[in-house]
Amino acid sequence: MTQLELIGVEGLPEVRPGDDLGELIGSRSRLESGDVLVVAQKVVSKSEGRLINFRSVQASDEAKRIASRLVASPDPRIVQVILDESVRVLRSERVLITETRHGFVCANGGVDHSNVPGSDELALLPEDPDASAGRLRDRLRELTGVEVGVIVSDTFGRPWRLGIVNVALGIAGLPALLDLRGSPDDTGKGLQATVLAIADDIAAAAGLVMGKTNRAPVVIVRGLALQGTGTGRDLIRPAAEDLFR
Amino acid sequence: MTQLELIGVEGLPEVRPGDDLGELIGSRSRLESGDVLVVAQKVVSKSEGRLINFRSVQASDEAKRIASRLVASPDPRIVQVILDESVRVLRSERVLITETRHGFVCANGGVDHSNVPGSDELALLPEDPDASAGRLRDRLRELTGVEVGVIVSDTFGRPWRLGIVNVALGIAGLPALLDLRGSPDDTGKGLQATVLAIADDIAAAAGLVMGKTNRAPVVIVRGLALQGTGTGRDLIRPAAEDLFR
Repeated sequence: MTQLELIGVEGLPEVRPGDDLGELIGSRSRLESGDVLVVAQKVVSKSEGRLINFRSVQASDEAKRIASRLVASPDPRIVQVILDESVRVLRSERVLITETRHGFVCANGGVDHSNVPGSDELALLPEDPDASAGRLRDRLRELTGVEVGVIVSDTFGRPWRLGIVNVALGIAGLPALLDLRGSPDDTGKGLQATVLAIADDIAAAAGLVMGKTNRAPVVIVRGLALQGTGTGRDLIRPAAEDLFR
Repeated sequence: MTQLELIGVEGLPEVRPGDDLGELIGSRSRLESGDVLVVAQKVVSKSEGRLINFRSVQASDEAKRIASRLVASPDPRIVQVILDESVRVLRSERVLITETRHGFVCANGGVDHSNVPGSDELALLPEDPDASAGRLRDRLRELTGVEVGVIVSDTFGRPWRLGIVNVALGIAGLPALLDLRGSPDDTGKGLQATVLAIADDIAAAAGLVMGKTNRAPVVIVRGLALQGTGTGRDLIRPAAEDLFR
Protein backbone atom coordinates (compact mmCIF):
# COMPACT_ATOMS: atom_id res chain seq x y z
CA MET A 1 0.00 0.00 0.00
CA THR A 2 2.15 2.89 -1.17
CA GLN A 3 -0.24 4.93 -3.25
CA LEU A 4 -3.82 5.93 -2.54
CA GLU A 5 -6.36 8.03 -4.39
CA LEU A 6 -9.17 10.07 -2.88
CA ILE A 7 -11.91 10.95 -5.33
CA GLY A 8 -14.91 13.14 -4.52
CA VAL A 9 -18.25 12.03 -5.99
CA GLU A 10 -19.71 15.20 -7.45
CA GLY A 11 -23.08 16.39 -8.55
CA LEU A 12 -25.21 14.78 -5.86
CA PRO A 13 -28.55 16.57 -5.55
CA GLU A 14 -30.00 17.65 -2.21
CA VAL A 15 -30.92 14.30 -0.62
CA ARG A 16 -34.49 13.85 0.68
CA PRO A 17 -36.16 11.25 2.88
CA GLY A 18 -36.77 8.06 0.92
CA ASP A 19 -34.16 8.80 -1.75
CA ASP A 20 -32.22 5.80 -3.01
CA LEU A 21 -28.75 6.88 -1.89
CA GLY A 22 -27.12 3.85 -3.51
CA GLU A 23 -28.57 4.79 -6.87
CA LEU A 24 -27.61 8.48 -6.45
CA ILE A 25 -24.01 7.47 -5.71
CA GLY A 26 -23.69 4.51 -8.07
CA SER A 27 -24.86 6.51 -11.07
CA ARG A 28 -22.28 9.25 -10.43
CA SER A 29 -19.16 7.18 -9.81
CA ARG A 30 -17.11 4.41 -11.36
CA LEU A 31 -16.58 2.09 -8.46
CA GLU A 32 -13.88 -0.54 -8.45
CA SER A 33 -13.68 -3.67 -6.32
CA GLY A 34 -11.93 -2.88 -3.04
CA ASP A 35 -12.86 0.80 -3.04
CA VAL A 36 -13.93 2.24 0.28
CA LEU A 37 -16.77 4.74 0.05
CA VAL A 38 -16.92 7.33 2.82
CA VAL A 39 -20.37 8.89 3.10
CA ALA A 40 -21.13 11.88 5.30
CA GLN A 41 -23.68 11.05 8.00
CA LYS A 42 -25.81 13.99 6.95
CA VAL A 43 -26.83 12.55 3.58
CA VAL A 44 -27.44 9.13 5.14
CA SER A 45 -29.64 10.68 7.83
CA LYS A 46 -31.56 12.68 5.24
CA SER A 47 -32.20 9.64 3.04
CA GLU A 48 -33.39 7.73 6.11
CA GLY A 49 -35.69 10.54 7.20
CA ARG A 50 -33.75 11.12 10.42
CA LEU A 51 -34.90 14.75 10.56
CA ILE A 52 -36.95 16.45 13.22
CA ASN A 53 -38.62 19.84 13.45
CA PHE A 54 -37.67 21.07 16.90
CA ARG A 55 -40.79 23.25 17.09
CA SER A 56 -42.81 20.05 17.50
CA VAL A 57 -40.89 19.23 20.70
CA GLN A 58 -41.72 20.19 24.31
CA ALA A 59 -38.66 21.35 26.31
CA SER A 60 -38.25 19.85 29.78
CA ASP A 61 -37.03 21.88 32.75
CA GLU A 62 -33.65 20.17 32.42
CA ALA A 63 -33.41 21.22 28.76
CA LYS A 64 -34.26 24.81 29.72
CA ARG A 65 -31.66 24.83 32.50
CA ILE A 66 -28.93 23.42 30.22
CA ALA A 67 -29.81 25.79 27.36
CA SER A 68 -29.27 28.81 29.62
CA ARG A 69 -25.73 27.65 30.44
CA LEU A 70 -24.60 27.11 26.84
CA VAL A 71 -22.81 29.53 24.57
CA ALA A 72 -25.33 31.42 22.40
CA SER A 73 -28.23 30.07 24.55
CA PRO A 74 -29.86 27.79 21.98
CA ASP A 75 -33.61 27.19 21.89
CA PRO A 76 -34.37 24.79 24.79
CA ARG A 77 -36.34 22.62 22.37
CA ILE A 78 -33.11 21.98 20.44
CA VAL A 79 -31.46 20.95 23.71
CA GLN A 80 -34.42 18.61 24.32
CA VAL A 81 -33.84 16.93 20.96
CA ILE A 82 -30.18 16.43 21.92
CA LEU A 83 -31.11 14.98 25.33
CA ASP A 84 -33.58 12.62 23.65
CA GLU A 85 -30.70 11.29 21.48
CA SER A 86 -28.42 10.83 24.51
CA VAL A 87 -28.00 8.40 27.39
CA ARG A 88 -25.62 10.57 29.41
CA VAL A 89 -24.51 14.19 29.72
CA LEU A 90 -20.74 14.58 30.15
CA ARG A 91 -20.50 18.38 30.08
CA SER A 92 -23.18 21.05 29.93
CA GLU A 93 -21.27 24.24 30.68
CA ARG A 94 -20.74 26.41 27.56
CA VAL A 95 -20.77 23.31 25.33
CA LEU A 96 -23.00 20.25 25.49
CA ILE A 97 -21.14 16.95 25.27
CA THR A 98 -23.17 13.79 25.60
CA GLU A 99 -22.96 10.08 25.03
CA THR A 100 -25.41 9.04 22.34
CA ARG A 101 -27.54 5.91 22.42
CA HIS A 102 -24.92 4.33 20.12
CA GLY A 103 -22.13 5.08 22.62
CA PHE A 104 -20.51 7.94 20.71
CA VAL A 105 -19.24 10.78 22.87
CA CYS A 106 -19.64 13.99 20.90
CA ALA A 107 -20.95 17.55 20.93
CA ASN A 108 -24.72 17.95 20.87
CA GLY A 109 -25.44 14.23 20.64
CA GLY A 110 -24.63 14.37 16.94
CA VAL A 111 -27.64 16.64 16.34
CA ASP A 112 -26.89 19.31 13.79
CA HIS A 113 -28.66 21.86 11.64
CA SER A 114 -25.97 22.85 9.15
CA ASN A 115 -26.65 21.72 5.59
CA VAL A 116 -30.26 20.94 6.47
CA PRO A 117 -32.91 22.87 4.52
CA GLY A 118 -35.37 24.85 6.61
CA SER A 119 -34.49 26.79 9.74
CA ASP A 120 -36.42 24.47 12.08
CA GLU A 121 -35.18 21.10 10.86
CA LEU A 122 -32.46 19.20 12.70
CA ALA A 123 -30.60 16.14 11.43
CA LEU A 124 -30.14 13.25 13.87
CA LEU A 125 -27.50 10.55 13.57
CA PRO A 126 -28.70 7.37 11.84
CA GLU A 127 -30.43 4.92 14.23
CA ASP A 128 -27.78 2.29 13.47
CA PRO A 129 -24.87 3.59 11.37
CA ASP A 130 -23.44 0.09 10.86
CA ALA A 131 -26.76 -1.05 9.41
CA SER A 132 -26.87 2.09 7.22
CA ALA A 133 -23.40 1.29 5.89
CA GLY A 134 -24.39 -2.34 5.30
CA ARG A 135 -27.54 -1.42 3.38
CA LEU A 136 -25.63 1.00 1.17
CA ARG A 137 -22.95 -1.61 0.49
CA ASP A 138 -25.62 -4.18 -0.44
CA ARG A 139 -27.43 -1.73 -2.69
CA LEU A 140 -24.23 -0.73 -4.50
CA ARG A 141 -23.36 -4.40 -5.08
CA GLU A 142 -26.86 -4.93 -6.49
CA LEU A 143 -26.63 -1.90 -8.80
CA THR A 144 -23.01 -2.09 -9.95
CA GLY A 145 -21.89 -5.65 -9.25
CA VAL A 146 -18.92 -4.20 -7.36
CA GLU A 147 -17.93 -5.11 -3.81
CA VAL A 148 -16.98 -1.96 -1.88
CA GLY A 149 -16.45 -1.06 1.75
CA VAL A 150 -18.63 1.70 3.22
CA ILE A 151 -17.97 4.10 6.08
CA VAL A 152 -20.65 6.46 7.41
CA SER A 153 -18.68 9.41 8.83
CA ASP A 154 -19.21 12.54 10.89
CA THR A 155 -16.97 15.34 12.18
CA PHE A 156 -16.26 15.19 15.93
CA GLY A 157 -14.28 17.45 18.23
CA ARG A 158 -11.88 15.92 20.72
CA PRO A 159 -10.32 16.73 24.08
CA TRP A 160 -6.80 18.18 24.19
CA ARG A 161 -6.76 19.17 20.51
CA LEU A 162 -8.58 21.92 18.66
CA GLY A 163 -10.70 21.58 15.56
CA ILE A 164 -12.96 18.81 14.36
CA VAL A 165 -11.88 15.71 12.45
CA ASN A 166 -13.88 13.24 10.41
CA VAL A 167 -14.41 9.86 12.14
CA ALA A 168 -16.15 6.58 11.29
CA LEU A 169 -19.58 5.99 12.87
CA GLY A 170 -20.75 3.03 10.80
CA ILE A 171 -18.74 0.47 8.85
CA ALA A 172 -19.44 -2.34 6.40
CA GLY A 173 -17.01 -4.48 4.44
CA LEU A 174 -13.75 -3.30 5.98
CA PRO A 175 -12.02 -3.52 9.36
CA ALA A 176 -12.34 -0.76 11.97
CA LEU A 177 -9.06 -1.49 13.70
CA LEU A 178 -5.79 -2.90 12.41
CA ASP A 179 -4.09 -4.80 15.20
CA LEU A 180 -0.34 -4.77 14.70
CA ARG A 181 0.50 -5.93 18.23
CA GLY A 182 3.10 -8.62 18.10
CA SER A 183 4.05 -8.08 14.48
CA PRO A 184 7.71 -7.17 14.25
CA ASP A 185 8.68 -3.56 13.62
CA ASP A 186 11.50 -2.65 11.25
CA THR A 187 14.12 -3.49 13.87
CA GLY A 188 12.66 -6.93 14.61
CA LYS A 189 11.22 -6.05 18.04
CA GLY A 190 7.54 -6.47 18.86
CA LEU A 191 5.41 -3.35 18.60
CA GLN A 192 3.46 -2.25 21.62
CA ALA A 193 0.11 -0.50 21.83
CA THR A 194 -0.15 -0.43 18.08
CA VAL A 195 -3.77 -0.88 17.18
CA LEU A 196 -4.44 1.51 14.33
CA ALA A 197 -7.92 3.04 14.09
CA ILE A 198 -7.76 2.48 10.36
CA ALA A 199 -11.41 3.38 9.68
CA ASP A 200 -10.96 6.71 11.46
CA ASP A 201 -7.82 7.41 9.42
CA ILE A 202 -9.83 6.66 6.25
CA ALA A 203 -12.68 8.91 7.38
CA ALA A 204 -10.23 11.71 8.16
CA ALA A 205 -8.61 11.34 4.75
CA ALA A 206 -12.02 11.60 3.09
CA GLY A 207 -12.68 14.69 5.20
CA LEU A 208 -9.97 16.47 3.21
CA VAL A 209 -12.03 16.09 0.06
CA MET A 210 -15.43 16.63 1.66
CA GLY A 211 -14.48 19.98 3.08
CA LYS A 212 -17.70 21.18 4.52
CA THR A 213 -19.29 23.31 1.88
CA ASN A 214 -18.28 21.92 -1.48
CA ARG A 215 -21.09 19.40 -1.69
CA ALA A 216 -18.89 16.34 -1.94
CA PRO A 217 -20.45 14.28 0.84
CA VAL A 218 -19.22 11.05 -0.74
CA VAL A 219 -15.56 10.21 -1.29
CA ILE A 220 -14.02 7.13 -2.87
CA VAL A 221 -10.78 5.90 -1.27
CA ARG A 222 -8.92 3.66 -3.72
CA GLY A 223 -5.87 1.46 -3.17
CA LEU A 224 -6.24 0.36 0.45
CA ALA A 225 -6.35 -3.45 -0.09
CA LEU A 226 -7.81 -4.11 3.37
CA GLN A 227 -8.76 -7.56 4.70
CA GLY A 228 -11.49 -8.41 7.19
CA THR A 229 -14.54 -6.64 8.48
CA GLY A 230 -15.53 -4.62 11.51
CA THR A 231 -18.16 -2.28 12.86
CA GLY A 232 -18.33 1.29 14.06
CA ARG A 233 -18.92 -0.07 17.55
CA ASP A 234 -15.40 -1.56 17.47
CA LEU A 235 -14.09 2.01 17.65
CA ILE A 236 -16.00 2.96 20.80
CA ARG A 237 -13.85 2.67 23.91
CA PRO A 238 -15.86 0.68 26.48
CA ALA A 239 -17.05 3.07 29.20
CA ALA A 240 -15.46 0.87 31.89
CA GLU A 241 -12.01 1.23 30.28
CA ASP A 242 -12.40 4.92 29.55
CA LEU A 243 -10.40 7.15 31.85
CA PHE A 244 -12.10 10.31 30.64
CA ARG A 245 -15.81 9.49 30.64
CA MET B 1 -10.35 20.00 -4.28
CA THR B 2 -11.98 16.83 -5.53
CA GLN B 3 -9.07 14.49 -6.06
CA LEU B 4 -6.07 13.81 -3.88
CA GLU B 5 -3.12 11.47 -4.13
CA LEU B 6 -1.16 9.92 -1.28
CA ILE B 7 2.27 8.65 -2.31
CA GLY B 8 4.66 6.82 0.01
CA VAL B 9 8.35 7.72 -0.31
CA GLU B 10 10.11 4.39 -0.39
CA GLY B 11 13.61 3.12 0.14
CA LEU B 12 14.65 5.36 3.00
CA PRO B 13 17.56 3.82 4.90
CA GLU B 14 17.61 3.55 8.70
CA VAL B 15 18.01 7.20 9.75
CA ARG B 16 20.85 8.06 12.15
CA PRO B 17 21.71 11.16 14.20
CA GLY B 18 23.14 13.86 11.96
CA ASP B 19 21.66 12.45 8.75
CA ASP B 20 20.45 15.03 6.24
CA LEU B 21 16.78 14.07 6.20
CA GLY B 22 15.99 16.61 3.46
CA GLU B 23 18.56 15.02 1.18
CA LEU B 24 17.35 11.49 2.00
CA ILE B 25 13.78 12.47 1.11
CA GLY B 26 14.46 14.84 -1.77
CA SER B 27 16.59 12.30 -3.62
CA ARG B 28 13.84 9.64 -3.42
CA SER B 29 10.81 11.68 -4.46
CA ARG B 30 9.59 13.96 -7.22
CA LEU B 31 8.12 16.82 -5.29
CA GLU B 32 5.71 19.28 -6.85
CA SER B 33 4.87 22.77 -5.69
CA GLY B 34 2.02 22.64 -3.20
CA ASP B 35 2.71 19.07 -2.06
CA VAL B 36 2.42 18.44 1.65
CA LEU B 37 5.03 16.07 3.03
CA VAL B 38 4.04 14.15 6.14
CA VAL B 39 7.08 12.84 8.01
CA ALA B 40 6.84 10.43 10.94
CA GLN B 41 8.24 11.93 14.14
CA LYS B 42 10.49 8.92 14.62
CA VAL B 43 12.74 9.64 11.64
CA VAL B 44 12.86 13.34 12.53
CA SER B 45 13.84 12.51 16.12
CA LYS B 46 16.51 10.08 14.93
CA SER B 47 18.04 12.59 12.52
CA GLU B 48 18.09 15.17 15.33
CA GLY B 49 19.70 12.74 17.77
CA ARG B 50 16.66 12.80 20.10
CA LEU B 51 17.53 9.35 21.43
CA ILE B 52 18.39 8.34 24.96
CA ASN B 53 19.72 5.15 26.53
CA PHE B 54 17.49 4.67 29.56
CA ARG B 55 20.22 2.72 31.36
CA SER B 56 22.08 6.00 31.77
CA VAL B 57 19.13 7.43 33.78
CA GLN B 58 18.51 7.30 37.55
CA ALA B 59 14.89 6.48 38.46
CA SER B 60 13.30 8.67 41.13
CA ASP B 61 10.97 7.28 43.80
CA GLU B 62 8.03 8.73 41.87
CA ALA B 63 9.12 6.90 38.71
CA LYS B 64 9.41 3.64 40.67
CA ARG B 65 5.99 4.12 42.23
CA ILE B 66 4.35 4.89 38.86
CA ALA B 67 6.12 2.00 37.10
CA SER B 68 4.66 -0.48 39.60
CA ARG B 69 1.12 0.67 38.78
CA LEU B 70 1.44 0.37 34.99
CA VAL B 71 0.52 -2.57 32.81
CA ALA B 72 3.58 -4.77 32.20
CA SER B 73 5.53 -2.86 34.92
CA PRO B 74 8.09 -1.12 32.71
CA ASP B 75 11.62 -0.41 33.89
CA PRO B 76 11.35 2.61 36.26
CA ARG B 77 14.17 4.29 34.34
CA ILE B 78 11.90 4.34 31.24
CA VAL B 79 9.21 6.01 33.36
CA GLN B 80 11.82 8.53 34.52
CA VAL B 81 12.62 9.42 30.90
CA ILE B 82 8.88 9.97 30.30
CA LEU B 83 8.55 12.18 33.40
CA ASP B 84 11.56 14.21 32.28
CA GLU B 85 9.75 14.91 28.99
CA SER B 86 6.52 15.91 30.76
CA VAL B 87 5.17 18.88 32.67
CA ARG B 88 2.13 17.11 34.09
CA VAL B 89 0.83 13.61 34.73
CA LEU B 90 -2.85 13.16 33.82
CA ARG B 91 -3.20 9.43 34.49
CA SER B 92 -0.76 6.91 35.93
CA GLU B 93 -2.94 3.87 36.60
CA ARG B 94 -2.38 1.06 34.08
CA VAL B 95 -1.38 3.58 31.38
CA LEU B 96 0.74 6.70 31.68
CA ILE B 97 -0.76 9.79 30.07
CA THR B 98 1.12 13.04 30.43
CA GLU B 99 1.29 16.53 29.03
CA THR B 100 4.62 17.05 27.29
CA ARG B 101 6.67 20.22 27.47
CA HIS B 102 5.17 21.15 24.09
CA GLY B 103 1.63 20.84 25.47
CA PHE B 104 0.71 17.56 23.76
CA VAL B 105 -1.39 15.20 25.86
CA CYS B 106 -0.42 11.66 24.93
CA ALA B 107 0.63 8.26 26.21
CA ASN B 108 4.15 8.01 27.64
CA GLY B 109 5.06 11.62 26.89
CA GLY B 110 5.66 10.65 23.27
CA VAL B 111 8.59 8.43 24.35
CA ASP B 112 8.74 5.23 22.35
CA HIS B 113 11.08 2.37 21.62
CA SER B 114 9.47 0.75 18.59
CA ASN B 115 11.45 1.13 15.38
CA VAL B 116 14.52 2.22 17.36
CA PRO B 117 17.61 0.03 16.98
CA GLY B 118 19.03 -1.39 20.21
CA SER B 119 16.97 -2.59 23.14
CA ASP B 120 18.00 0.25 25.48
CA GLU B 121 17.42 3.23 23.18
CA LEU B 122 14.29 5.37 23.42
CA ALA B 123 13.17 7.99 20.91
CA LEU B 124 11.96 11.31 22.32
CA LEU B 125 9.73 13.78 20.48
CA PRO B 126 11.62 16.56 18.68
CA GLU B 127 12.44 19.54 20.93
CA ASP B 128 10.38 21.83 18.70
CA PRO B 129 8.40 19.98 16.01
CA ASP B 130 7.41 23.24 14.26
CA ALA B 131 11.09 24.17 13.95
CA SER B 132 11.86 20.64 12.69
CA ALA B 133 9.16 20.99 10.02
CA GLY B 134 10.45 24.44 9.07
CA ARG B 135 14.06 23.27 8.71
CA LEU B 136 12.99 20.34 6.52
CA ARG B 137 10.88 22.63 4.35
CA ASP B 138 13.82 25.05 3.95
CA ARG B 139 16.22 22.24 3.11
CA LEU B 140 13.88 20.75 0.50
CA ARG B 141 13.44 24.17 -1.13
CA GLU B 142 17.23 24.53 -1.21
CA LEU B 143 17.75 21.07 -2.74
CA THR B 144 14.82 20.84 -5.15
CA GLY B 145 13.66 24.43 -5.71
CA VAL B 146 10.16 23.31 -4.81
CA GLU B 147 7.95 24.91 -2.15
CA VAL B 148 6.23 22.21 -0.08
CA GLY B 149 4.36 22.08 3.19
CA VAL B 150 5.72 19.82 5.92
CA ILE B 151 3.94 18.04 8.80
CA VAL B 152 5.83 16.14 11.48
CA SER B 153 3.36 13.50 12.67
CA ASP B 154 2.96 10.91 15.40
CA THR B 155 0.29 8.37 16.33
CA PHE B 156 -1.75 9.28 19.42
CA GLY B 157 -4.53 7.48 21.27
CA ARG B 158 -7.62 9.40 22.30
CA PRO B 159 -10.34 9.27 24.94
CA TRP B 160 -13.71 7.74 24.04
CA ARG B 161 -12.44 6.00 20.91
CA LEU B 162 -10.17 2.97 20.50
CA GLY B 163 -7.05 2.73 18.41
CA ILE B 164 -4.39 5.26 17.56
CA VAL B 165 -4.55 7.84 14.77
CA ASN B 166 -1.83 9.89 13.14
CA VAL B 167 -1.84 13.59 14.17
CA ALA B 168 0.22 16.68 13.34
CA LEU B 169 2.83 17.74 15.91
CA GLY B 170 4.80 20.23 13.84
CA ILE B 171 3.78 22.22 10.78
CA ALA B 172 5.46 24.46 8.22
CA GLY B 173 4.03 26.03 5.09
CA LEU B 174 0.37 25.06 5.52
CA PRO B 175 -2.47 25.93 7.89
CA ALA B 176 -3.24 23.81 10.96
CA LEU B 177 -6.91 24.77 11.15
CA LEU B 178 -9.41 25.71 8.46
CA ASP B 179 -11.92 28.12 9.94
CA LEU B 180 -15.21 27.83 8.09
CA ARG B 181 -17.26 29.68 10.71
CA GLY B 182 -19.48 32.16 9.01
CA SER B 183 -19.05 30.80 5.52
CA PRO B 184 -22.40 29.73 4.15
CA ASP B 185 -23.22 26.05 3.99
CA ASP B 186 -25.00 24.52 1.01
CA THR B 187 -28.36 25.79 2.24
CA GLY B 188 -27.15 29.37 2.72
CA LYS B 189 -27.10 29.32 6.52
CA GLY B 190 -23.97 30.05 8.52
CA LEU B 191 -22.05 27.03 9.76
CA GLN B 192 -21.42 26.72 13.46
CA ALA B 193 -18.48 25.17 15.28
CA THR B 194 -16.84 24.30 12.02
CA VAL B 195 -13.13 24.71 12.45
CA LEU B 196 -11.55 21.78 10.65
CA ALA B 197 -8.30 20.38 12.05
CA ILE B 198 -7.04 20.12 8.50
CA ALA B 199 -3.44 19.25 9.43
CA ASP B 200 -4.66 16.37 11.60
CA ASP B 201 -6.84 15.11 8.75
CA ILE B 202 -3.78 15.25 6.46
CA ALA B 203 -1.64 13.41 9.02
CA ALA B 204 -4.33 10.74 9.43
CA ALA B 205 -4.54 10.31 5.65
CA ALA B 206 -0.78 9.84 5.47
CA GLY B 207 -1.07 7.29 8.30
CA LEU B 208 -2.93 5.04 5.88
CA VAL B 209 0.18 4.81 3.71
CA MET B 210 2.71 4.78 6.53
CA GLY B 211 1.19 1.76 8.21
CA LYS B 212 3.58 1.03 10.96
CA THR B 213 5.96 -1.55 9.63
CA ASN B 214 6.33 -0.93 5.92
CA ARG B 215 9.13 1.62 6.24
CA ALA B 216 7.26 4.43 4.53
CA PRO B 217 7.76 7.11 7.18
CA VAL B 218 7.35 9.86 4.59
CA VAL B 219 4.19 10.40 2.54
CA ILE B 220 3.46 13.00 -0.13
CA VAL B 221 -0.09 14.41 -0.14
CA ARG B 222 -0.81 15.99 -3.52
CA GLY B 223 -3.74 18.12 -4.63
CA LEU B 224 -4.70 20.00 -1.47
CA ALA B 225 -4.23 23.58 -2.73
CA LEU B 226 -4.13 25.05 0.78
CA GLN B 227 -3.61 28.71 1.59
CA GLY B 228 -1.97 30.21 4.67
CA THR B 229 0.32 28.90 7.36
CA GLY B 230 0.03 27.62 10.89
CA THR B 231 1.86 25.74 13.60
CA GLY B 232 1.43 22.53 15.50
CA ARG B 233 0.74 24.64 18.59
CA ASP B 234 -2.44 25.91 16.89
CA LEU B 235 -3.86 22.41 17.33
CA ILE B 236 -3.30 22.25 21.08
CA ARG B 237 -6.42 23.12 23.03
CA PRO B 238 -5.43 25.71 25.66
CA ALA B 239 -5.42 24.01 29.08
CA ALA B 240 -7.80 26.65 30.46
CA GLU B 241 -10.40 25.82 27.82
CA ASP B 242 -9.92 22.08 28.07
CA LEU B 243 -12.73 20.33 29.91
CA PHE B 244 -10.84 17.05 30.12
CA ARG B 245 -7.39 18.03 31.35
